Amino acid sequence: MISGLKPIPEPALRRLPVYLQLLKSLQERNINEVSTTVFADTLNLDPTQVRKDIAYTGMIGKPKVGYDVNELIDTIESYLNWNNLTDAFLAGTGNLGSAILGYDALKKYGINIVAAFDNDPAKIETKIQGIEVLPIRKLTNLAERMHIKVGILTVPAQAAQEVAAHMVDGGIIAIWNFAPVSLSVPKDIIVENAGFSTSLAVLSRKLTEKITHSNRSGEKIL
Amino acid sequence: MISGLKPIPEPALRRLPVYLQLLKSLQERNINEVSTTVFADTLNLDPTQVRKDIAYTGMIGKPKVGYDVNELIDTIESYLNWNNLTDAFLAGTGNLGSAILGYDALKKYGINIVAAFDNDPAKIETKIQGIEVLPIRKLTNLAERMHIKVGILTVPAQAAQEVAAHMVDGGIIAIWNFAPVSLSVPKDIIVENAGFSTSLAVLSRKLTEKITHSNRSGEKIL
Repeated sequence: MISGLKPIPEPALRRLPVYLQLLKSLQERNINEVSTTVFADTLNLDPTQVRKDIAYTGMIGKPKVGYDVNELIDTIESYLNWNNLTDAFLAGTGNLGSAILGYDALKKYGINIVAAFDNDPAKIETKIQGIEVLPIRKLTNLAERMHIKVGILTVPAQAAQEVAAHMVDGGIIAIWNFAPVSLSVPKDIIVENAGFSTSLAVLSRKLTEKITHSNRSGEKIL
Repeated sequence: MISGLKPIPEPALRRLPVYLQLLKSLQERNINEVSTTVFADTLNLDPTQVRKDIAYTGMIGKPKVGYDVNELIDTIESYLNWNNLTDAFLAGTGNLGSAILGYDALKKYGINIVAAFDNDPAKIETKIQGIEVLPIRKLTNLAERMHIKVGILTVPAQAAQEVAAHMVDGGIIAIWNFAPVSLSVPKDIIVENAGFSTSLAVLSRKLTEKITHSNRSGEKIL
């Protein structure tokens, strides 16, 4: 089932998996109902924000009760389409690529890696974490034949643009990019930069603000 | 130098490293000036948005000229505090932890991993990528003695909460969390969830919207 198309702001979208993690930990403890206050207190968020975020999925909490834990898990997973597996190709089987191939939880997030690609002759036709490694020159043709829509890009920076182009040529419309480069692709291609740089930008800026603020307010933190 | 404290919205903050990547590719090609139009066209963004994002760093473009490439690189790096190295501890040296230890570009993002921690006796006192692995029980005490402020959490989900608590006990105030759990930490601790789940939430939702939209408009894409 694909839920409504009302566009969700990206920060709200990024919070949904965090709600999901909390819901699953409640489910494990056999807790069946959860209020926005529990979300807000556990995750340091504003209750109104939690309610708004969840409303994008089409789920409305009951007054004084909140949400049914199991129902909300299903709703969020369905909203994120994590209850359907989408086949994906991964290109680049270095440290990071291998880590992702071995990341069991990926299937929980709706991603099923069906083949990996590399240019290193020593790796080709071997299996990494049970997934076959093929030469990159076969990527475009195979993507087309297998109707692959998602590409995971874990090649070195200098190869990223070229391999991304092979993906697009093969009909891939969503690229999960771990290479530290800004890809130049047609406007209708979805690129999610999962690289460390964006995450570290948020971390280091918040840390800088915090340290500056603490120093100004006289609190000694460094 | 620490730039102004005007809070930047997180989506804008996440775009700054992408601008930086583009700027560096221009720098390599000896291009000294760049307009917002170049940013907007290359990255599929609105020029007004680009101008607003960059203004948070304190940098204003010159009319009809745009920005000086080198100056803007310095300004963004300084804004993100990436020109200062911050020492960090990493806990959990599995596939992902090892990939991060071997990720040379981390220093470009201002992070200097000074020690790694694991509970596996086979790993303790070995070196991974040149970085010594110590037992997790030493983390709190060492973090305190070395005034470490940043912790990178790459332990399995079931160990994450406990190791995060050790980090906080040792005075760590910013946790880069790769474990697929929502950490429960004091309100003044910065947690940046770098886990795959948030990134995949964005990717799979956008893909779902795109496929649904294409199907409705009669275009065949699957």
